[in-house]
Amino acid sequence: MTIKVGIQGASGYTGAELIRILTAHPEAELVFVTSERYAGQSMDRIFPHLSLRSDLVCRPLQDQSCLPDCQVVFCALPHATSMKVVPELLRYDLKVIDLSADFRLRQPKVYQDWYKTSHTSPEWLAEAVYGLPEIYREKIRGARLIANPGCYPTSVILALAPLMNGGGVIDAGSIVVDSKSGVSGAGRSPAEERLFAELVEGFRPYATGFHRHTPEIEQVLSDLCGQTLRVRFAPHLLPQSRGILSTCHVRPLPGSEGLNWQELFERHYQGEYFVRVLKPGVLPATNHVRASNYVHLGVVEDRRTGWLTVLSTIDNLVKGAAGQAVQNMNLLFGLDEKTGLTQLPVFP
Amino acid sequence: MTIKVGIQGASGYTGAELIRILTAHPEAELVFVTSERYAGQSMDRIFPHLSLRSDLVCRPLQDQSCLPDCQVVFCALPHATSMKVVPELLRYDLKVIDLSADFRLRQPKVYQDWYKTSHTSPEWLAEAVYGLPEIYREKIRGARLIANPGCYPTSVILALAPLMNGGGVIDAGSIVVDSKSGVSGAGRSPAEERLFAELVEGFRPYATGFHRHTPEIEQVLSDLCGQTLRVRFAPHLLPQSRGILSTCHVRPLPGSEGLNWQELFERHYQGEYFVRVLKPGVLPATNHVRASNYVHLGVVEDRRTGWLTVLSTIDNLVKGAAGQAVQNMNLLFGLDEKTGLTQLPVFP
Amino acid sequence: MTIKVGIQGASGYTGAELIRILTAHPEAELVFVTSERYAGQSMDRIFPHLSLRSDLVCRPLQDQSCLPDCQVVFCALPHATSMKVVPELLRYDLKVIDLSADFRLRQPKVYQDWYKTSHTSPEWLAEAVYGLPEIYREKIRGARLIANPGCYPTSVILALAPLMNGGGVIDAGSIVVDSKSGVSGAGRSPAEERLFAELVEGFRPYATGFHRHTPEIEQVLSDLCGQTLRVRFAPHLLPQSRGILSTCHVRPLPGSEGLNWQELFERHYQGEYFVRVLKPGVLPATNHVRASNYVHLGVVEDRRTGWLTVLSTIDNLVKGAAGQAVQNMNLLFGLDEKTGLTQLPVFP
Amino acid sequence: MTIKVGIQGASGYTGAELIRILTAHPEAELVFVTSERYAGQSMDRIFPHLSLRSDLVCRPLQDQSCLPDCQVVFCALPHATSMKVVPELLRYDLKVIDLSADFRLRQPKVYQDWYKTSHTSPEWLAEAVYGLPEIYREKIRGARLIANPGCYPTSVILALAPLMNGGGVIDAGSIVVDSKSGVSGAGRSPAEERLFAELVEGFRPYATGFHRHTPEIEQVLSDLCGQTLRVRFAPHLLPQSRGILSTCHVRPLPGSEGLNWQELFERHYQGEYFVRVLKPGVLPATNHVRASNYVHLGVVEDRRTGWLTVLSTIDNLVKGAAGQAVQNMNLLFGLDEKTGLTQLPVFP
Repeated sequence: MTIKVGIQGASGYTGAELIRILTAHPEAELVFVTSERYAGQSMDRIFPHLSLRSDLVCRPLQDQSCLPDCQVVFCALPHATSMKVVPELLRYDLKVIDLSADFRLRQPKVYQDWYKTSHTSPEWLAEAVYGLPEIYREKIRGARLIANPGCYPTSVILALAPLMNGGGVIDAGSIVVDSKSGVSGAGRSPAEERLFAELVEGFRPYATGFHRHTPEIEQVLSDLCGQTLRVRFAPHLLPQSRGILSTCHVRPLPGSEGLNWQELFERHYQGEYFVRVLKPGVLPATNHVRASNYVHLGVVEDRRTGWLTVLSTIDNLVKGAAGQAVQNMNLLFGLDEKTGLTQLPVFP
Repeated sequence: MTIKVGIQGASGYTGAELIRILTAHPEAELVFVTSERYAGQSMDRIFPHLSLRSDLVCRPLQDQSCLPDCQVVFCALPHATSMKVVPELLRYDLKVIDLSADFRLRQPKVYQDWYKTSHTSPEWLAEAVYGLPEIYREKIRGARLIANPGCYPTSVILALAPLMNGGGVIDAGSIVVDSKSGVSGAGRSPAEERLFAELVEGFRPYATGFHRHTPEIEQVLSDLCGQTLRVRFAPHLLPQSRGILSTCHVRPLPGSEGLNWQELFERHYQGEYFVRVLKPGVLPATNHVRASNYVHLGVVEDRRTGWLTVLSTIDNLVKGAAGQAVQNMNLLFGLDEKTGLTQLPVFP
Repeated sequence: MTIKVGIQGASGYTGAELIRILTAHPEAELVFVTSERYAGQSMDRIFPHLSLRSDLVCRPLQDQSCLPDCQVVFCALPHATSMKVVPELLRYDLKVIDLSADFRLRQPKVYQDWYKTSHTSPEWLAEAVYGLPEIYREKIRGARLIANPGCYPTSVILALAPLMNGGGVIDAGSIVVDSKSGVSGAGRSPAEERLFAELVEGFRPYATGFHRHTPEIEQVLSDLCGQTLRVRFAPHLLPQSRGILSTCHVRPLPGSEGLNWQELFERHYQGEYFVRVLKPGVLPATNHVRASNYVHLGVVEDRRTGWLTVLSTIDNLVKGAAGQAVQNMNLLFGLDEKTGLTQLPVFP
Repeated sequence: MTIKVGIQGASGYTGAELIRILTAHPEAELVFVTSERYAGQSMDRIFPHLSLRSDLVCRPLQDQSCLPDCQVVFCALPHATSMKVVPELLRYDLKVIDLSADFRLRQPKVYQDWYKTSHTSPEWLAEAVYGLPEIYREKIRGARLIANPGCYPTSVILALAPLMNGGGVIDAGSIVVDSKSGVSGAGRSPAEERLFAELVEGFRPYATGFHRHTPEIEQVLSDLCGQTLRVRFAPHLLPQSRGILSTCHVRPLPGSEGLNWQELFERHYQGEYFVRVLKPGVLPATNHVRASNYVHLGVVEDRRTGWLTVLSTIDNLVKGAAGQAVQNMNLLFGLDEKTGLTQLPVFP
């Protein structure tokens, strides 16, 4: 089978990563790419590392001529653009995997509160499926529109999901998520605060308490545990390009003393190819999953203080964006979920 | 006044930083340096950035010939070595500022539990003064032996002290400290896990739950709040050389809703030259205090979740080690505390 | 076809990279790995990024039990160890691809001069084929023992080869090669000078004038131009993990003024899949070939001064080591040279 | 003596570095700062590391009200702005130290050729003195307008000056300068090519053959050797913030075989406080001069190939900009040249 694929918004880091992964995918053929800023230019001019894909020339965003030939379109457009473009795409007989935040949240009001914009296509929010295969695999298979998860939420939800399912294992008010991300997550557009000289030797927090990925994390965790949950989410910017590491601190409830957390996690993710629960004593590091779709989890219990810490790392551009999107594509088209995604991490 | 100074253990990063700071100090004269490993070699061979101090030749650690001439000795020796060397030094008429952990904890048993060694000079533990001037300034002035604080503890204690003094402002069981440090804190001895290729693009946690700075933090905070306190302390290693940023999450107790935390911090540190409480909306970053003795604090209240986060950054080799040691020296000899330490941070 | 493969010395960066590439190779099966230091340990303990290859357990270096099953063995052993091990391996009916320097140079005397050791297996020097496919492709196909090129020589020879073939195009005494390498090329063994804190913000030269890759470069270039050639080779260490960029300055001879150097390079490498001559105005960068087997070349003529500069970049662990070794394996076994090596570079 | 000082264009990296150095200068008082972009804002908002200088509020560039009070103004304005502003300043009774390129070159035509702009104040070119104290010290003392040297030229000229003075020691056509610079040299304005994610692990060349510092280097070297000289200048961008290292390859002329180059350099720079000729076997590294005004030089002769390589490193923002400007100020006002500039480098 060859799936014909298009990418809307190919000139950002996520677009480039989609091209990298799809070029090596045995069942996908990249039919078109678009870019508003670089229409008419070939990919190797925009990204010299794609020198072998000089055949890919960016079309204008509005060009719909290739849509009838495609079976799936990835949208790597900025927030608020996607919500306008996606309904247009869905007029055609194709699937859409949207990598923006525009279809991840179920309540239009949440967009108002956290994104300060009215949603222009609220009718699609109910139909969109949140594309985290380890949690919503069955729903994904039958979807037309996939809302591909954010990078932070992927790392956090997979870290905490095993503690949600049990129901009543941890204190719902105790969840403190201290996340650290590489800079590529913030995109390629020029900004003083992302210049090399500003960041090297310059680790820092940002958006503490109001980062837009917070409601996304809370929505899924609330789903899983069956009650409305709030998370203290504190993101930080690392002096590195790729990689997210989330340190999730929670307080187990009294009565859970006998639990073997390591075993609980291993059992929960048994059979999940991309999620590796590390052996006791081994802790995750961002460069141990670099350029791959794997998730590394570490579980540490501190009996002295009563806190449990789950550490989780992903490559924000792969499992946190383009890789997960391709994993979703595989599910949508009945392929083995792993197809094209089994490359080992690049270290060092 | 000229204070005559010696350094025991000058061949590590802390030793080199002491030399850098003391060379510029208007009231100090560096009389001798020692190194076990590099005895007989000049400092510019060990550290090419000290090319102007080729006059300093390392003596053997055992050489006591210069001690009668000195008024103060800085010990930058490894843990467990200091506890043997310091009592020897104190036979002379001089002050000792010890930068190891060997005299920071009051109870010998804590060394047994956390350092897995018996303390060989427990009689000095009671006399040693913990050298954090912003908290123990008066005691420091009259001390003979200063236990210079650890780098993490300096960043954490200064972040949380204003919440301790009030007594009963925050939930003592809720303290989660998520710290991130540059690699220089781990010293200069060769180790696979500190190689450049292992760390670049490779942020990671370590020693979660059993880092030796934990009891030091707990001892001082317990002092301040008048009750025994435990802290969930989770350190991480940054792909950068210098700088610590501690993200301290705490839950204020019910009844504190009306409090203006920003104001509380500003008032607490009013008059403290080295501690800057940043304006609301500005958050600390490690490269904004680089190579300086300043501490930057940011206070963020998250009313939605009920958590308060205090962010704190220092240069681990300056305020976290050599700079603070010189601040202590100034106090010991009746100088203005700021002498030789007012240089602005080096950015970018 | 499935080629059965072994790796001698799998616990260094090159060994790990071989495992990464061979795991994804459609025609290769990794049968055994050895390590002197880590015998008995599984690869995921030595390299957490290889968590999926916990099946690979290191055998002792001396263990020859798997050799009868193998068709090819990669030797990623240190210099001077390989020269002892390789002849042992060649008693079996298999091919050897040696990644050390031990069989790259034809004259035993050169080992004496540059490596300060006597070669213990000089009889194999004549039979070994230098494994740079773009130059020695036909010889490689029929070889038993491949001497896989060094990382610097790969980058330099491919940059200068098009200027050698013509004969008499450039002044043979004018070749100045100013190379810069990431740290991974120096290996994983702990050393003060490769610690993170020593290198970040700390670009530096090393081994100027006596680097051991010099005679290797000179041997091949002399071959190509038909006269004995000497090269001023000046290597430097970059504050990055992977990547080599060589800046090769040469003076064209009088009479070459009319030449179109860009065209000369494009024509020379026409049909070479892994070598990309960049369009005029685009210059190579190490992160544009990262984690791939590609070579990017840029050609810049400076008519004002009469110098021609060829810029060349590779990933030192891929085209500079493990990737090129697999390219050689493909040739040895009659596969398409590109098999398993077409992955696009990982950027950013 | 207190020199009253102003800074035009204080919101770039050079401006901030001037503030850092001048704040610690015992004989200078910073009277005003200007910024076109940030007029009305205080320095601690623009640069959080300057939190202690919240007293400095940027005036508009046009505001001349403080000029009558000042004895010297530093201009850290962009090229082509300075040439308009400086003549205005010189109407007042003060000295100007201009850090742009606008007054460094003697011939207006060179601005046309290399900068593609007509010089609007050519009458000042003859009066401006090139502010490289190690070469033009006497002229500097009496100047009204100092053209502070570029960062690359400072590193290159000081590396090659000892070879120029002799006259006829090296082949004038052989000079190949391969320079590598940290990113801060390119300034703080946002640009895709200076984003962290583009540069980390991404060493690269740029502007090979047409960098605007080329004619500046050639002008001074030609002065020194008494003939018109051309230099092959190839700059590169390092994945680090500060620091320049220039690798200067030259061919000594026949007849110079007996020369002891190390001694020649040591003798040449004897008595120069800021220039350190490293001992044989020690090579310069950018982090060994970080945040200081020192220059480290290494001299390597390669008898095998006949090339001589001089390696030179500086901090581009200090000796390459703000530090050298203050060194010039000291000379202009009859102070000891070292005043305020003796701080040792910050390592690691």
